[in-house]
Amino acid sequence: MSGKHILILGGDGYLGWPTAMYFSNRGYEVTVVDNYFRRNACAELDVGMLYPVPTLVERAKIWHGLTGKEIKVVIGDLTDPEVMRGLFEGRVAYAWAVDKSFTGKPDTVMHYAEQPSAPYSLINYRYANITVQNNLLVTNNLMWALRDFSRDTHVVHIGTMGEYGTPNIDIPEGWIEIEHNGRKDRFLFPRQASSLYHTTKIMDTDLMWFAVRMWDLRVTDLMQGPVYGIETEESKMADGGGQKAEDRGQRTEVGGQKTEDGNAGGQEPSAMNQELSANSQQLRARSHELRTIFNYDEIFGTIVNRFIVQAIVGYPLTVYGKGGQTRGYLNINDTLQCVHMAEKTPAEKGELRIFNQIMETFSANDLAEKVKRVGKALGYDVKIDHIENPRKEAEEHYYNPTYQGLIDIGVEPHYLTDDVLKGVFKVVEKYRYNIRQDVIFRGIRWT
Amino acid sequence: MSGKHILILGGDGYLGWPTAMYFSNRGYEVTVVDNYFRRNACAELDVGMLYPVPTLVERAKIWHGLTGKEIKVVIGDLTDPEVMRGLFEGRVAYAWAVDKSFTGKPDTVMHYAEQPSAPYSLINYRYANITVQNNLLVTNNLMWALRDFSRDTHVVHIGTMGEYGTPNIDIPEGWIEIEHNGRKDRFLFPRQASSLYHTTKIMDTDLMWFAVRMWDLRVTDLMQGPVYGIETEESKMADGGGQKAEDRGQRTEVGGQKTEDGNAGGQEPSAMNQELSANSQQLRARSHELRTIFNYDEIFGTIVNRFIVQAIVGYPLTVYGKGGQTRGYLNINDTLQCVHMAEKTPAEKGELRIFNQIMETFSANDLAEKVKRVGKALGYDVKIDHIENPRKEAEEHYYNPTYQGLIDIGVEPHYLTDDVLKGVFKVVEKYRYNIRQDVIFRGIRWT
Repeated sequence: MSGKHILILGGDGYLGWPTAMYFSNRGYEVTVVDNYFRRNACAELDVGMLYPVPTLVERAKIWHGLTGKEIKVVIGDLTDPEVMRGLFEGRVAYAWAVDKSFTGKPDTVMHYAEQPSAPYSLINYRYANITVQNNLLVTNNLMWALRDFSRDTHVVHIGTMGEYGTPNIDIPEGWIEIEHNGRKDRFLFPRQASSLYHTTKIMDTDLMWFAVRMWDLRVTDLMQGPVYGIETEESKMADGGGQKAEDRGQRTEVGGQKTEDGNAGGQEPSAMNQELSANSQQLRARSHELRTIFNYDEIFGTIVNRFIVQAIVGYPLTVYGKGGQTRGYLNINDTLQCVHMAEKTPAEKGELRIFNQIMETFSANDLAEKVKRVGKALGYDVKIDHIENPRKEAEEHYYNPTYQGLIDIGVEPHYLTDDVLKGVFKVVEKYRYNIRQDVIFRGIRWT
Repeated sequence: MSGKHILILGGDGYLGWPTAMYFSNRGYEVTVVDNYFRRNACAELDVGMLYPVPTLVERAKIWHGLTGKEIKVVIGDLTDPEVMRGLFEGRVAYAWAVDKSFTGKPDTVMHYAEQPSAPYSLINYRYANITVQNNLLVTNNLMWALRDFSRDTHVVHIGTMGEYGTPNIDIPEGWIEIEHNGRKDRFLFPRQASSLYHTTKIMDTDLMWFAVRMWDLRVTDLMQGPVYGIETEESKMADGGGQKAEDRGQRTEVGGQKTEDGNAGGQEPSAMNQELSANSQQLRARSHELRTIFNYDEIFGTIVNRFIVQAIVGYPLTVYGKGGQTRGYLNINDTLQCVHMAEKTPAEKGELRIFNQIMETFSANDLAEKVKRVGKALGYDVKIDHIENPRKEAEEHYYNPTYQGLIDIGVEPHYLTDDVLKGVFKVVEKYRYNIRQDVIFRGIRWT
């Protein structure tokens, strides 16, 4: 055990849950917090996920059954400052934990607790309002909780490359020196995003930069591109379960040790162990359910994931307009590497450290062609459809971002090879009968 | 009558109410909206105003009694999108109006509806939260209401020079061209503010710039410096009331004309006229109560106004630290001129037009010396106290902002002369027995 404590805000999401397993698997003490925003939004908007996902409490139990490791679960809305502050002060009720005593102040906070969809933010004024309110209040509450209780804690925040937009000059990693009328100063690179969601991330940057300067906090802000992929090392442990079976003894021991502290919530230690033991076989049988939430709809699905699903069900790939929109992309496994490397080499006190978290750039046309090629090799008849662009964005533009900082601190990039795409195809194929064609595209308009 | 309709969000504040009278006096149809945020905050925080101020409804009645002109009043919280949208759709209940029928979509919206105090935003996490929530939801709700109902309406928003902070390069009016690695583009000047309140204004800029680009809205954002002063042409009409008495006949006529439309709320037209007529003498007697809210405390008072009050009660002028903090300032009458000129020459569709709304720059030491000099001439023994700076800010710095745009569209600056200062002294002196020394300074710390 590293003994380090990681608090993951937004631990139920596409990146949040894989991050929780990743750090738990490496010996960190992990606490996840979520209010099920994503799931509730998927239900409300009737956009199906590729497969049902157990609750966070169930996932934490399955994970514990598989590995003997504990991921503490808090269900709460972080726009409420009291919920946020409780995580630092110890006023926290775990929805599930082997040891329900307070873990203590986190060494690192992974801040994923944001409404993450551009189309969602533009459905109408209500969703716009939810996006602004959720994203900014959570960030503000986090900054104040750190100010008041834990100024040394390192925050790793997921920003977005979309904050920069598509300027006509090269994009540095967050900062730029400007010379004007013979004088110089260093500034945040001027940002202008093309959706309201992306704009809230700019506003996060403003807010965090204020807090960092004022209170000497430590923040790493990762300007991430769209992520693709489904499996991670931990989600695949289910298949290689035999290898991990030796953990079971340790698990019971860990559970026993911890509950000897006399703090197992409402249950006696022996009752808790009994439950874990009786259920362990069932829990291990469910370990394929540790896979992350996977959306393939226009609102919550990311482009590569969406295209693969569309290829499998014979839905022409939806390229918006000319398809020259160029962005940086990365594999979900590289997101995990990036936040890990950022965690291992924290920002200094008073530093807002910014990395561009992408591994390569592609146009929408490039991605469509790749998915088409791999799909054909797998026997699918993949068509590409250039539909009217529901967004207001440049379809042909200059794009030259720098992305070296994360590699400099040890990240080893995975690239979007045909084999990687095939791997995603293979997992999605298992759930092909779940795919609802009616939720793939509804044409939420930017204007 | 120009027939133009001005909607003033935040019509109860230090600038909002004088703006309402200013435009009403010039023949505009004026509607004011407020939720009494400032008054409630003053009560909650126990910071007295220099004199009591009637409710918005009372003020509108007094104004009507004095001039025969109607300022429609809406009491509502604009963080609720339904309240905002009602102002454009016609779902609006006037708390007071001669003619309670919907005025229609505004030609211009003056957006003052923000929590305006830097110290307030840093009292603690609750006030920080209120500031973020209020300022950004109101702006977001306004942008969406315009998008959905009135894309031609021109918004005049009060930003702040504090958005720029104190960079080591010259400050242009909002925008800058950046050359980087041999390529060029035009950007918002990079902003970094020194309080949370000021940071919410940066976030407003981000939000409005997104909305302007996406939906072709028209916005003028005025980067204002701290305002000083108390009297405006309209607040002084009480004294010169004889001159305006001839308006009385017209007033009754206007009331009569309007109510003939058959829409006078719960009252019959004749009853409304009767009330107005019976009360008119009393209302005119109260017309000195049209003066704007005037705060002299650390939270809501601006520096020149505070120093004058301190000089009068013998409270040493509170200069923070070295006093080299340099900012741009303007007279409350110039704020009115500026918003008027901005209104007369609206921004183009798709334009976020930015002006730096200051008339001259001073250091805190300069201001203290001026107030001391004028105070001495008036017989006060004025002392200056360099107290420990409760803020985290540079006390000596480069500061060279441009402020030419408003003059180019017709604003004629008033400067902070000794006579102007004397004028404020003379009004404040009338209320000297109301001044509470205990609320002048409490030392809200930035860190």
